[in-house]
Amino acid sequence: MTPTHVLIVSGGMDSATLAHETVKDGGSPLLLTFDYGQRHKKEIDYARLLGIDVGAPHKVIDLSSVNQILGGSALTDDSIEVPEGHYAADNMASTVVPNRNAIMLSVAYGAAVSLKCPIVGAAMHSGDHVVYPDCRPEFVKAFQKMEKIATEGYSHADLSFWTPYIEMSKAQIATRGLELGIDYSRTWSCYKGGELHCGRCGTCFERKEAFCLIGVEDPTDYERK
Amino acid sequence: MTPTHVLIVSGGMDSATLAHETVKDGGSPLLLTFDYGQRHKKEIDYARLLGIDVGAPHKVIDLSSVNQILGGSALTDDSIEVPEGHYAADNMASTVVPNRNAIMLSVAYGAAVSLKCPIVGAAMHSGDHVVYPDCRPEFVKAFQKMEKIATEGYSHADLSFWTPYIEMSKAQIATRGLELGIDYSRTWSCYKGGELHCGRCGTCFERKEAFCLIGVEDPTDYERK
Repeated sequence: MTPTHVLIVSGGMDSATLAHETVKDGGSPLLLTFDYGQRHKKEIDYARLLGIDVGAPHKVIDLSSVNQILGGSALTDDSIEVPEGHYAADNMASTVVPNRNAIMLSVAYGAAVSLKCPIVGAAMHSGDHVVYPDCRPEFVKAFQKMEKIATEGYSHADLSFWTPYIEMSKAQIATRGLELGIDYSRTWSCYKGGELHCGRCGTCFERKEAFCLIGVEDPTDYERK
Repeated sequence: MTPTHVLIVSGGMDSATLAHETVKDGGSPLLLTFDYGQRHKKEIDYARLLGIDVGAPHKVIDLSSVNQILGGSALTDDSIEVPEGHYAADNMASTVVPNRNAIMLSVAYGAAVSLKCPIVGAAMHSGDHVVYPDCRPEFVKAFQKMEKIATEGYSHADLSFWTPYIEMSKAQIATRGLELGIDYSRTWSCYKGGELHCGRCGTCFERKEAFCLIGVEDPTDYERK
């Protein structure tokens, strides 16, 4: 069956919400997760779980070979420590994987063209903008324009790039997800990829903060609350 | 050592010329070749040979996992026959691998950012334009603009995309290469990837035509002249 959406999912809260939202709206997504050599490879297991939860096919694309030339990020290089503390630009700079979104999205667009699927979706949100340049609305616009040219004559006539959360905060996404009945204990955020969420790295901070802001009990087991 | 250029090379004539040209001009390129499940995997051996010939490091990036979702091209799907005859739009449509250049270039840009290298180079030429939408000047421009946004704050201030042959014909590239003293028998073009160049597929036609147009003996061993 031709999917209605090709969605990039990480196993975290935002992309889980995107997948549930798609299915709730009657869509039949294909879920793609990328192994780019991230130390929190555990997120891939949670992305698989998401596929089961929403009843959608899920594929893991092995880009670990790319890691041999993409150095310098705390997410892929064990010699660089994952920063602790807030999810803010200065603190999180070492977690940038150069050009990650352009790489993953190019593959997702290739899949969409190949499968004649009209929508590519990704769950970047407003909190990402200051940290990751390739999560900003201007990136989305430029990427879409580039792809229109790159796939002209081959892609679905109106292949579109769907980023519904790009102006939303993580707390707003969590609110939306809870309305959809998502059990967020079945998602993984922590960049450290240990037994439990560490509770100290930037993305754990952001996760805890989202639940705190909306006044809902956080279902996550943290190593440190 | 930081490379001066990250070059995408296939093992064919155009990218071989690009690599020789870079080294002749005093550059120290890093050569990248992509295994995307192409049936003419043989080209990768020729790309390795190119690395040896120009004395540059060469890395093969394994994207074969992407092939599970990028179907429908004669280059990656054994059930689709490689077309014979001229290198022209209608004839070569089945050889389009959806979004191939955006995928390979995104990885090359990621490498350039990571290595603090100022130039990404690729050898698309004017004959590619009618067949491959992602080889046209407007694609190059849109891709460059997208990358400027995607890597803002992390990339080399003036990271540029070098496509010196984009308005040249293959015959002009061959002329340039012969001036540089390139032995084109050490390159591979044929999409079929057999023992010898088949002499009948679109890219073999284009190769033969280039030597014929410039009146130089073609050093290639063809199955059928």
